[in-house]
Amino acid sequence: MADQQIYKQGLDACAANYEQLSPLRFIERTAEVYPQALAVLYGDLRRNWAETYDRCRRVAGALVGRGLRPGDTVAIIAANIPEMFEAHFSVPMAGGVLNAINTGLDAEAVAFILNHGEARVLLVDPEFAELAERAVRISGRTEMLVVDILDPGFDGARRIGQLSYDALLAEGDADFDWLLPESEWDAITLNYTSGTTGDPKGVVYHHRGAALNAMANIVSWGMPQHARYLWTLPMFHCNGWCFPWTIAANAGVCICLRAVRAEPIWQLIRDERVSHFCGAPIVLNMLANAPDELKVFDHEIKVMTAGAAPPATVIAAMEALGISVTHVYGLTETYGPSVVCAWKEEWNERSPEARARLKSRQGVRNPALGGLMVADPETMAPVPRDGQTMGEIFMRGNNVMKGYLKNPSATEKSFRGGWFASGDLGVIHPDGYIELKDRSKDIIISGGENISSIEVEDVLYRHPDVMEAAVVARPDAKWGETPCAFVALKPGRVLSAEDLIAFCRQNMAHFKAPRTVVFGELPKTSTGKIQKFILREQARRL
Amino acid sequence: MADQQIYKQGLDACAANYEQLSPLRFIERTAEVYPQALAVLYGDLRRNWAETYDRCRRVAGALVGRGLRPGDTVAIIAANIPEMFEAHFSVPMAGGVLNAINTGLDAEAVAFILNHGEARVLLVDPEFAELAERAVRISGRTEMLVVDILDPGFDGARRIGQLSYDALLAEGDADFDWLLPESEWDAITLNYTSGTTGDPKGVVYHHRGAALNAMANIVSWGMPQHARYLWTLPMFHCNGWCFPWTIAANAGVCICLRAVRAEPIWQLIRDERVSHFCGAPIVLNMLANAPDELKVFDHEIKVMTAGAAPPATVIAAMEALGISVTHVYGLTETYGPSVVCAWKEEWNERSPEARARLKSRQGVRNPALGGLMVADPETMAPVPRDGQTMGEIFMRGNNVMKGYLKNPSATEKSFRGGWFASGDLGVIHPDGYIELKDRSKDIIISGGENISSIEVEDVLYRHPDVMEAAVVARPDAKWGETPCAFVALKPGRVLSAEDLIAFCRQNMAHFKAPRTVVFGELPKTSTGKIQKFILREQARRL
Repeated sequence: MADQQIYKQGLDACAANYEQLSPLRFIERTAEVYPQALAVLYGDLRRNWAETYDRCRRVAGALVGRGLRPGDTVAIIAANIPEMFEAHFSVPMAGGVLNAINTGLDAEAVAFILNHGEARVLLVDPEFAELAERAVRISGRTEMLVVDILDPGFDGARRIGQLSYDALLAEGDADFDWLLPESEWDAITLNYTSGTTGDPKGVVYHHRGAALNAMANIVSWGMPQHARYLWTLPMFHCNGWCFPWTIAANAGVCICLRAVRAEPIWQLIRDERVSHFCGAPIVLNMLANAPDELKVFDHEIKVMTAGAAPPATVIAAMEALGISVTHVYGLTETYGPSVVCAWKEEWNERSPEARARLKSRQGVRNPALGGLMVADPETMAPVPRDGQTMGEIFMRGNNVMKGYLKNPSATEKSFRGGWFASGDLGVIHPDGYIELKDRSKDIIISGGENISSIEVEDVLYRHPDVMEAAVVARPDAKWGETPCAFVALKPGRVLSAEDLIAFCRQNMAHFKAPRTVVFGELPKTSTGKIQKFILREQARRL
Repeated sequence: MADQQIYKQGLDACAANYEQLSPLRFIERTAEVYPQALAVLYGDLRRNWAETYDRCRRVAGALVGRGLRPGDTVAIIAANIPEMFEAHFSVPMAGGVLNAINTGLDAEAVAFILNHGEARVLLVDPEFAELAERAVRISGRTEMLVVDILDPGFDGARRIGQLSYDALLAEGDADFDWLLPESEWDAITLNYTSGTTGDPKGVVYHHRGAALNAMANIVSWGMPQHARYLWTLPMFHCNGWCFPWTIAANAGVCICLRAVRAEPIWQLIRDERVSHFCGAPIVLNMLANAPDELKVFDHEIKVMTAGAAPPATVIAAMEALGISVTHVYGLTETYGPSVVCAWKEEWNERSPEARARLKSRQGVRNPALGGLMVADPETMAPVPRDGQTMGEIFMRGNNVMKGYLKNPSATEKSFRGGWFASGDLGVIHPDGYIELKDRSKDIIISGGENISSIEVEDVLYRHPDVMEAAVVARPDAKWGETPCAFVALKPGRVLSAEDLIAFCRQNMAHFKAPRTVVFGELPKTSTGKIQKFILREQARRL
């Protein structure tokens, strides 16, 4: 041909035909198209999309007015309340990066995160005022702007900040002219994961990934417009699996909830006709075991669950209630669940046991993920699709994190050969569905929370009587897993399990403390490495 | 802060966390996840997603084997048959750009397109073998590879090419290792529009826009997975509004159809439980006016319609049948419909007349479009939201074309001040919904087809008896609009309307020929310009 480059000439990107992808467009469009539609529901509070968008713009404008610059971190420590939802839009509208902090952490961990993330602003839910106050003091971030969210629905609040969220909001202008990010690759949020070793790592998400994964949630779940979504999954978990942005894209209803208890959840399901919610298996279990008189509804409900593999009994109990369960899997590093056990119609004809077994597998990549494989971690060669051969789970695509903040060595280690190495072990079945066989050796998932065994071991080792310690997961019907400690005492010392657990609870978040302690010699390899797989087996048989 | 650039360091894109957006990922994923699910249905033919993906890869491999290079154009002239669907994947998998040609064009227009687009390969449906043969001869493209699609469902086929589609397919390998485009901004398809003036213009789409608009279709229409989509809308129209890619993303069923007639459509709706289809108002009208015994179904059906504003009676007739109508609007330049009359639940309580009036408005931007406005074409100032003040309709965003192929001046003219100037005139209502008041003056939309009045005038002017001619749209209950010619004859000449129409039909596509001819002097401005707005008024009153 005369000219092979005809498509490369005079066809450049310009403001008319190219814009940065961002979930901020979602709330803008939904507020424009459905201004009067219900956006946020919390107790007696009802706000439509126009009002919610208005509030987000005001907060964004106020933050900029107070000197927030592009790329500054804004932290929030809050339950699933409206302000938490709003922050997912207001902070990036101001050019900032939202860092939603796990409310279950202790003050030291929160202080570490505030410092490592270099938070310039901290938004505080009154329920966590005390925790935040201690964390701020420990962090020494005296110049940080601390903002109290006032929640009439929460009793006994104490103010620790310079001003209230409402006062901040009043400083801003609803006409604040927010801009799309300079690049869709710019950071939008920062989420700390305990990871497998040492200090928490700051996982950075970008606008592109947030927008694409939010859309993938809709496609993957077959979510209709105006879905009524109940917030049983913490928004501090991978930004609620990107659902704040999904709900905005879908013009849905964001049903807020402070406390994850069976009674209010069933009540909201019934009264507010909740159509969708997400939650760890422990939440599903709690709902299934609630008194029958609470479980009253006559509409379709879908639930998405992840975390520790949901016991077949939990899935079966949900489905017996007529609630359709979608099982998903992912990591903080993959914007939450990037793997979904995509259901096939023909499976409906299988026995309940077979269905539950199929559904307890982790599944296939979601529509935003570019690649998923189980491979030999050394050679990167995919394992055979036999459902037997173990390998490491690898992902790649636009919903894999930018990397770990200020941690290039960890980032480099996790990106191997063009893939993200999950650290999780699994198999792949002949139909291409993966199944998790073991979380990376040292992670314990308890009630949906990741617990680093190394962190627990560090505390155990601090006890004067402890010589050696190793912590593994112990299967638990209620929590999924609990930390189980194997401890060898120093010669001649005497210590009770109760005292050691109490010691741990004084030194770390309560949920991380071991539930079980076994005393005795620890099995080791010839090179002196503790053989955790043996301990895991022992814990399983306890 | 010590360091404001913490999010800019050590967080670069790499193969693990960044890949080019492309709808090719959709078919790959769907074939992986739902290999056995029905993908394509055509008469007695049934193919699942594994088979369809396999065929696409074989054709892609064969094209590369025959020397197709990245950025080469592959043209196709075909009805909505499986091979047309496959080409939307196989051609870009080979790095090529798909140019689906309007089957209603005459051989001269097709030849122009083949030459302008520099097609290296032409795939030919037997129904259009004669047209293609003439076009190839006129084009003089002797080196072009012509491939005959053999369709057992079509009688009387003649082969005009060097080999059959099946033979091409047999040359390829199902393991052909296609690659994502080097850049998501790379061209994926080329679609010619008659535009408002002169020669057809080649609108270039890119992988990014195709992927995003395909996803937007799902979100905007609330389309569930495995939707059963009937092909009543030609795939040569803006790539079937991106629905080939939408169906792949959604693991839907692509129900092919050669001839758009009421009987087979109603039969497929009933027997194959069609859940979604798109079509011009004329198609809806045809379906509504079919014999009642055909209209038998007991499931939910949704239809999307665009083109000439659908008469309220057509919408009402569809909805009386229980078929939910979504009204959309767009141009070839915006990947098809980028504007949607998003429906609001509260409107359901209005009277049928009020509902039809609300629904006949064009609406708001779809989820992929970044901006939509009605503005003064000179100052670019948005018109007031009064439903009265006319302005030009402008769009911008990721589903606006790359530009016109080899036509930088037209591209530049259409991208004004960071917006795409549609050339269409409309108003914006207080609720932000736009309403088209007039297509750009010289476009006639007949049966969903754009007809350039200038092109028709050119033919009229070729008749030896014609002195002056002007063509405008005449409203038509069946076709939406038909071309109406106002003609002043040379002094002393005598000519009948029938003879002039026959002359036109000999010299252009039949559907473009005037349906009505009015003889007489033409109204003009003081500077001698024909006043088309007066003629349009006259045509309306005929």
